[in-house]
Amino acid sequence: MQYKELTIKDVHNLLEICSPERVYADEDINDDFTHDEMPEYGKFKPGVVVEPINTDEVSAVMKYAHDNNIPVTPRGSGTGLCGGAVPIYGGILLSLAKMNRILEIDEDNLTATVEPGMLLMDFIKHVEEKGLLYPPDPGEKSATLGGNIMTNAGGMRAVKYGVTRDYVMALKVVLPNGEVTRFGSKTTKNCSGYSLKDLMVGSEGTLGIVTEIILKLIPEPKSIISLLVPFSDLDACIDAVPKIIRSKALPTAIEFMQKEVIKAAEEYLGKKFPDKSSDAYLLLTFDGNSREEVERIYEDVADICLESGAVDVFLSDTEERQESIWGARGVFLEAIKSSTPSMDECDVVVPRDKIAEYVRYVNTLEKTYGVRIRSFGHAGDGNIHVYLCKDNLDDEVWKEKCSSIMKALYNKAIQLNGQVSGEHGIGHAKVPYLVESIGEVPVLLMQGIKQVFDPKYILNPGKVVAGA
Amino acid sequence: MQYKELTIKDVHNLLEICSPERVYADEDINDDFTHDEMPEYGKFKPGVVVEPINTDEVSAVMKYAHDNNIPVTPRGSGTGLCGGAVPIYGGILLSLAKMNRILEIDEDNLTATVEPGMLLMDFIKHVEEKGLLYPPDPGEKSATLGGNIMTNAGGMRAVKYGVTRDYVMALKVVLPNGEVTRFGSKTTKNCSGYSLKDLMVGSEGTLGIVTEIILKLIPEPKSIISLLVPFSDLDACIDAVPKIIRSKALPTAIEFMQKEVIKAAEEYLGKKFPDKSSDAYLLLTFDGNSREEVERIYEDVADICLESGAVDVFLSDTEERQESIWGARGVFLEAIKSSTPSMDECDVVVPRDKIAEYVRYVNTLEKTYGVRIRSFGHAGDGNIHVYLCKDNLDDEVWKEKCSSIMKALYNKAIQLNGQVSGEHGIGHAKVPYLVESIGEVPVLLMQGIKQVFDPKYILNPGKVVAGA
Repeated sequence: MQYKELTIKDVHNLLEICSPERVYADEDINDDFTHDEMPEYGKFKPGVVVEPINTDEVSAVMKYAHDNNIPVTPRGSGTGLCGGAVPIYGGILLSLAKMNRILEIDEDNLTATVEPGMLLMDFIKHVEEKGLLYPPDPGEKSATLGGNIMTNAGGMRAVKYGVTRDYVMALKVVLPNGEVTRFGSKTTKNCSGYSLKDLMVGSEGTLGIVTEIILKLIPEPKSIISLLVPFSDLDACIDAVPKIIRSKALPTAIEFMQKEVIKAAEEYLGKKFPDKSSDAYLLLTFDGNSREEVERIYEDVADICLESGAVDVFLSDTEERQESIWGARGVFLEAIKSSTPSMDECDVVVPRDKIAEYVRYVNTLEKTYGVRIRSFGHAGDGNIHVYLCKDNLDDEVWKEKCSSIMKALYNKAIQLNGQVSGEHGIGHAKVPYLVESIGEVPVLLMQGIKQVFDPKYILNPGKVVAGA
Repeated sequence: MQYKELTIKDVHNLLEICSPERVYADEDINDDFTHDEMPEYGKFKPGVVVEPINTDEVSAVMKYAHDNNIPVTPRGSGTGLCGGAVPIYGGILLSLAKMNRILEIDEDNLTATVEPGMLLMDFIKHVEEKGLLYPPDPGEKSATLGGNIMTNAGGMRAVKYGVTRDYVMALKVVLPNGEVTRFGSKTTKNCSGYSLKDLMVGSEGTLGIVTEIILKLIPEPKSIISLLVPFSDLDACIDAVPKIIRSKALPTAIEFMQKEVIKAAEEYLGKKFPDKSSDAYLLLTFDGNSREEVERIYEDVADICLESGAVDVFLSDTEERQESIWGARGVFLEAIKSSTPSMDECDVVVPRDKIAEYVRYVNTLEKTYGVRIRSFGHAGDGNIHVYLCKDNLDDEVWKEKCSSIMKALYNKAIQLNGQVSGEHGIGHAKVPYLVESIGEVPVLLMQGIKQVFDPKYILNPGKVVAGA
């Protein structure tokens, strides 16, 4: 790709679109804008950062970039883990952080209309106040909703409720040439041409910039209970998961965690976890409209766990206790991160009956390669987050081992009919693994679609379908 | 488009791919293959009908058609209502009816793997035997699953469970050039490149031919109850719907029906409907894991209905009684069809709080234009099926009135932020309305996508994005 080098004149022209306090160039650009949560994948400085506050401004910025052949990288709050929001070709970094308003909560249609920069944690509060639930529940609550949509974020409750895609009804989109359009509508059903809305979900900012989102909500369940279930060993723990699924009990979430990760979370938070006497734990949630309904379900599951080698079943039905458990779960990533000078990660997803096999395989790699590996994740939906910790390994040794382990991790996933990414996306860091995993034919189709939306290839270049 | 005229030689070559009893030409082609459920939109005779029985055969047929520039129209059981499966450019009609096997029901992952020609009604039986539920519930049970996917069929239970798209996990697809590929996987989460799987869903056979489908299942609810609620007048009836949604009770289905349609169904079936003393009815279903759970929900909704002018609330909790009500609901289309020599239909969907306004508008058109109009549909999800009956009108008068009423129906839908089709699709009959409804920009993108998948434009030409 040949792009125009950004000049002072371009910055001046962008100042005509966004007011000066929302345009930064050169040394005014904060280092944060050069990377996401994985600076390990490289730091890239944009020529200019612009922070539009409405669709018209986004459209004008895109039109300018399009006319002048300048690359544009859209960014939410930068919590990504694959370098999806970093400007690897420089140019304009378009931050949507200031477009963070809630435009409507429609209780007649059970929908919310929001701007893409709204943080998930803020949105959750708004929605709960109305007695409604936005089911997707990614661990990173300071992510933006726009970012969640761009990676089709899944989160804890996917076991019962599905993923972000299932709750996106409509999008207002600025195309790479600046044109403004809408995909989808506030209707439950739709078969009116190809689902461009679904093409946008999970496209990691490469096809268009979302400036308005209509999300589906559901009535908030009236009763929620969590179970923390310690197992004497990992095998018993993860082997219980398919038995739970097979029982048709339908928990809201099934997370698995190992002692080492819990300890790291305790240290990170400076708070005690309710139990850490065992090697491996399942954390389950159940919801429903009455205590009795929820009890009926979880009692069956508790029995299955005990029959499968659980040491005990701790019931957590107070908000405080749930907070202490889920609070720890929420900081696993940060806790692991703070325990090592550098790390690498993968976000493989496998069919859920294969999760036990996959986790066991991950654990063998630690010994094989002599690299500390921590994993945790969504046992109930087959999505596991694996972290390789550099610790005090030499740079060269680390690089080499990392590369071998990553290849092994992805190969195993392919072998089990899994996918490269459950919810973190491809960004630029995972591009080679995508081709290996899904094959050339789908990638060529994706590149063709990219070409249709963005013939000048200016929007978030180098991501997802990088070879276009 | 310029296609090669089909010759005897082509038929002979196709006989090399599929065995003779599965290839028909000329007078051996049954008239059924020239139209779907709406012969009113024109009859088109294919040059040849082929009935492949596996992916390899489909691939070989497509490769042959691609190399020889012959149009191919895929077809399930021909229950469509927009001419989506009719060969308007002749060529090869590729019937998937013989690819109707169930390949796997996976109780560990709660999925089913099926071929596209399997009928919905057969699939339901297989799944129920395992204590599982396939939530999408389109009225036409003799449709194929492939057809359901191609129109993103919705059905009755969309209020609670969503539509076909939400249950499609992965597809094996033969591309227009004969290449075989896979989109999606048997994983709950996925963010590994653009969702080509979701692009296929609702694409009405214009992008590729689905030859294998992985569907998500859920545990079957243990208790199901229906309520038949008569209202003294239509206004009270449809005005109750938003109140029910607002109450957050989450019924499985909310259908509305008027006395005239019920009478037609009684005549058609030769069976009495439990009640027809009132002008308008809501038919609601609730499901859950225990009788108590379901009772708690429906009692609240029954109260809302009574406060909104319901004359009574009939509980239907035996299988026999549910059968008599839902059996009638299932034949509404056929009953209306058999009452008139010809008809036209539309399948508009509006935000659900607009359904009352839309139904009222539809009813005004009957008087304005002097055409008998029958409507029924999915009040809970805003999807209404409207049927204009020709009765004894002159051909010319009918044509003119039809055209005016259709324009009025679609304009009103656009005005209420609705969509052209909730679940029947665009086919060739609704192409002009699609452009008017969603505008040029999305249609151009769709045409671009069509070009990427099918550069020779041989697969189901003239449908959905006809202008490409």
